[in-house]
Amino acid sequence: MMKKNMALLLQYDGSRYDGWQRQGNTANTIQGKLEDVLERMTGRYQEVHGSGRTDAGVHAMGQVANVHLETEMGDGEIRDYLNRYLPEDILVLKAKEVPQRFHSRLQAREKTYTYWVETGQRCPVFQRKYITVLGECLDAAAMEEAASCLKGTHDFTSFCTAQGKKKSPVRTIKEIRIVPHGSQLEFVFLGDGFLYNMVRILAGTLIEVGQGKRTPGSVAGTMEARNRQEAGYTAPAKGLFLARVSYDPEIF
Amino acid sequence: MMKKNMALLLQYDGSRYDGWQRQGNTANTIQGKLEDVLERMTGRYQEVHGSGRTDAGVHAMGQVANVHLETEMGDGEIRDYLNRYLPEDILVLKAKEVPQRFHSRLQAREKTYTYWVETGQRCPVFQRKYITVLGECLDAAAMEEAASCLKGTHDFTSFCTAQGKKKSPVRTIKEIRIVPHGSQLEFVFLGDGFLYNMVRILAGTLIEVGQGKRTPGSVAGTMEARNRQEAGYTAPAKGLFLARVSYDPEIF
Repeated sequence: MMKKNMALLLQYDGSRYDGWQRQGNTANTIQGKLEDVLERMTGRYQEVHGSGRTDAGVHAMGQVANVHLETEMGDGEIRDYLNRYLPEDILVLKAKEVPQRFHSRLQAREKTYTYWVETGQRCPVFQRKYITVLGECLDAAAMEEAASCLKGTHDFTSFCTAQGKKKSPVRTIKEIRIVPHGSQLEFVFLGDGFLYNMVRILAGTLIEVGQGKRTPGSVAGTMEARNRQEAGYTAPAKGLFLARVSYDPEIF
Repeated sequence: MMKKNMALLLQYDGSRYDGWQRQGNTANTIQGKLEDVLERMTGRYQEVHGSGRTDAGVHAMGQVANVHLETEMGDGEIRDYLNRYLPEDILVLKAKEVPQRFHSRLQAREKTYTYWVETGQRCPVFQRKYITVLGECLDAAAMEEAASCLKGTHDFTSFCTAQGKKKSPVRTIKEIRIVPHGSQLEFVFLGDGFLYNMVRILAGTLIEVGQGKRTPGSVAGTMEARNRQEAGYTAPAKGLFLARVSYDPEIF
């Protein structure tokens, strides 16, 4: 039987998981949970490819993954089977058969992440796992100025946690928006891709600018330094959402 | 030292609690958690009076309680002390000294509850503890018609779970609104007070009307029957929020 290449549009609450990527025998990852249910469904293990790894505690509104499956089940049946056996903090919004060559990571064209902060003193009960509490107001104009320096194509070495792999540290950020929602701020980052911890370090750096701990003008120098020590802190995972992954042509 | 009468405006996620009311020695209730922290603060036990008991699993956006405390701490200090020691799913939004005669339950003038349902098949990940999934569309016009029969001053015996106490079953519902939010519906119930399980049974009955299991016209007869068996099911606790409690004059 020909294997189908299935793309999955996923929503998950990362709070109780060790991130996206399956690690050895521990299945307490989003990828691991998906692979376990798919192995149950088809009788054999198949690797699920995510558009990118989300860290422990990071959430997704619209992660995209793909997997090659030997099955005669239709798109809706696969989605429903997965949702029946997945824990309730992981949801398959859509499942869709896509061309064999489609790869969720290699072909991702654009990603949108959002980062949520509460400027008030108290952590809102119903968002307590989804927001970082700062307890102080941030200077919006200063953050906007810093954000405009971060936009564009740059070497983001200063804004990522070093990994062994030799990947290019050049990325393009197309848009950074800072959207107020009452006492909360939503940082929206749209780019062609993000390095390890990059969104959290960008958020941390913007927060420090908003707090007056660094000037908006200093951000260009931080970029040029190509040194992680120069940038701000890594903002906590729980405020971060992978909001959307885009492809050309769009699949969802 | 004169005791202060402190009113508290509370938000809580009821998911992991056995409801509002302290039961014997088990402190796994909202009231119990508050009393434990206040006892730690003042050195003596004081009963906390809620505007009403919320059932196990029911949430609050704006519960009001009051407690008489022997303390020299100010309003903000009391609020901050409570928030420091309360679990993160219970939050004191405000604490305010009020006249000695104020009683959160006896003087409550109006309460607003909201009930959330998802008409889609799948349970949204980030609201999974706060919404009831129906998986079918509801007839909004039929529910509106039924809701208009429920409004007003009636004997709501059919719409409550009997309790030993002989309280009047007459209540006035001032407003029932059904607000669409995409595939979700928010039922808003505003009244002078609600009997045990009344909001959940009203929601369950409206849902059954929306599903076509009962007609809008049947609701008046259900009311007249004064028989719990005649009304709809008790909708699950997790979709219910105590949204607001009003007083005259307002205290928060």
